[in-house]
Amino acid sequence: MEEAVAVLARTPATLDALLRGLPDDWVMAHEGGDTWSPFDVMGHLIHGERTDWVPRARIILEHGETRAFDTFDRLAQFAVSEGRTLASLLDEFATLRQESLHELATLRLTNADLDRRGRHPALGVVTLRQLLSTWMAHDLDHVVQIARVLARQYSDEVGPWRAYLRIISGTQG
Amino acid sequence: MEEAVAVLARTPATLDALLRGLPDDWVMAHEGGDTWSPFDVMGHLIHGERTDWVPRARIILEHGETRAFDTFDRLAQFAVSEGRTLASLLDEFATLRQESLHELATLRLTNADLDRRGRHPALGVVTLRQLLSTWMAHDLDHVVQIARVLARQYSDEVGPWRAYLRIISGTQG
Repeated sequence: MEEAVAVLARTPATLDALLRGLPDDWVMAHEGGDTWSPFDVMGHLIHGERTDWVPRARIILEHGETRAFDTFDRLAQFAVSEGRTLASLLDEFATLRQESLHELATLRLTNADLDRRGRHPALGVVTLRQLLSTWMAHDLDHVVQIARVLARQYSDEVGPWRAYLRIISGTQG
Repeated sequence: MEEAVAVLARTPATLDALLRGLPDDWVMAHEGGDTWSPFDVMGHLIHGERTDWVPRARIILEHGETRAFDTFDRLAQFAVSEGRTLASLLDEFATLRQESLHELATLRLTNADLDRRGRHPALGVVTLRQLLSTWMAHDLDHVVQIARVLARQYSDEVGPWRAYLRIISGTQG
């Protein structure tokens, strides 16, 4: 679990280094249709800190399987981030993450706690360990998404190298 | 092209934020077989700064299509990084990237320069603009790879959430 926390603690600085100060065209770029821009992803991460990860850990610890988690709103970021700047979203995410990890530390989770079970509204029974592992993998999933959205703005510009660039060709190889 | 440089300038700090200080188990983790660890990727990026990007730009400007690029050795990182620490690779990459971008700036490339053509040993005719775009996308491709390698160490630990995590399920969605 220390390893998961090591990654969770690094995500705000990683996204800050990648995104802060980039031209707006890039920050707002997406992959077409209703796919998300880096700006949208930051709102989603903020909403997750507020309503998903630590709140769900608390539900597991307090209610076990008797109370299902609240459903996570995957579109809430559009309300979170309306009228905001990317810089203010990066700042807020960093603050919220720090608070989340502080709160997690105060829970002083034991191995037995990590095995405690809760109930996901769609996936059924899950453990606290699975929730915290997912929190970490979810961060990295969105790091991947943001990097991919940025790179794909250059899908045509790379010319024949496209064949070598998995990020553009779409193979994960 | 300013936008590509904006990303290129950010990559060292992004990787530094993501990786520095992570436990060795993670830095050396890979996806099985002869896939690369984050440590291997850093060696690859260093080798690219030394032999690939700016050196190829110079070949285009000096020789055009008359001289093919030297073949890039995709396994050179194992020599580059032998016996090194991750911290020293991060430091070296940051220094080399700064030098590369300084050198790029001194070339004072015009739009006409960006349309100049060179010859890739396998892909054939490419332009300087395509080379520089590829440099940027290549960075992001390896950011994706590193994030994916880290997340996949938790493929089992996330339990039923695996279905929602594209980084683990392998769909790029």
